[in-house]
Amino acid sequence: MDYSTFIPIREIYIKAEKETGNLLILKEHAQAEASLVMFVGEPEFIAIAKEKGLIQTPRPLTHELYLTLLEQTELELLRVSISDVRDQTYLAQVHYRIGDDEFQADSRPSDAIALALHQKIPILAHPGLLKKPLSSDQLDTLKDFIRSVKF
Amino acid sequence: MDYSTFIPIREIYIKAEKETGNLLILKEHAQAEASLVMFVGEPEFIAIAKEKGLIQTPRPLTHELYLTLLEQTELELLRVSISDVRDQTYLAQVHYRIGDDEFQADSRPSDAIALALHQKIPILAHPGLLKKPLSSDQLDTLKDFIRSVKF
Repeated sequence: MDYSTFIPIREIYIKAEKETGNLLILKEHAQAEASLVMFVGEPEFIAIAKEKGLIQTPRPLTHELYLTLLEQTELELLRVSISDVRDQTYLAQVHYRIGDDEFQADSRPSDAIALALHQKIPILAHPGLLKKPLSSDQLDTLKDFIRSVKF
Repeated sequence: MDYSTFIPIREIYIKAEKETGNLLILKEHAQAEASLVMFVGEPEFIAIAKEKGLIQTPRPLTHELYLTLLEQTELELLRVSISDVRDQTYLAQVHYRIGDDEFQADSRPSDAIALALHQKIPILAHPGLLKKPLSSDQLDTLKDFIRSVKF
């Protein structure tokens, strides 16, 4: 896959939504019209909110435990990517280097985003996944869709 | 801490409990009377149930993603321990080796148990945490207590 065409995500908005689940909105920058909207589970939402400095938790979360271990190894986390949506499921990857070799591992987007925010590494999204803003009719259709998307 | 006195956990029972949360019971062996009872959050419960082969999930869970990365490094996971309970919060550690040096990282017990089941490494518990079976009156008291325990 040609990741050089991917768009860097520099703005992430999060919102706790009772009816539909917890909402993430990814944008290239604050003024960008196009966005990627996804709903995530409670633990991933908490991890992302914590990385954004919005909440604190008394004990290390799952990804904090593992990042503590990884930081002591020669494995270097490079970037994460959100590459596709298939069967209403978004696909993401974590890219990393060991020595001179680069690898990638499949990931849920919410895990990839929490990891990237913690490590301060780039989040890249396939350009086709960043949608233009929708009309209110389209938004109603989207709401039905995003409720059934699995993260 | 003298981990040589810790008791190896060889039996883990899990049960989804609607009213009180998801239950884990740790025992030295199936016939042992003493047990360590803890309640865990939904994602940790799912991770442990998956490691026990009770459920499947279509995509890698958070700890599976990170263990995939760690398995490619020189870091060797050795064992996990549940060492204490303070302010109604259980304390656990992940023990690991890098080269000739051994380290430990603080962890939530539920993360430590999911990790240990996945990696097939020992789970050790402080002997004082394994309680004898309780009378039904004591069990009622325990139920009030464990509801407020944080994992």
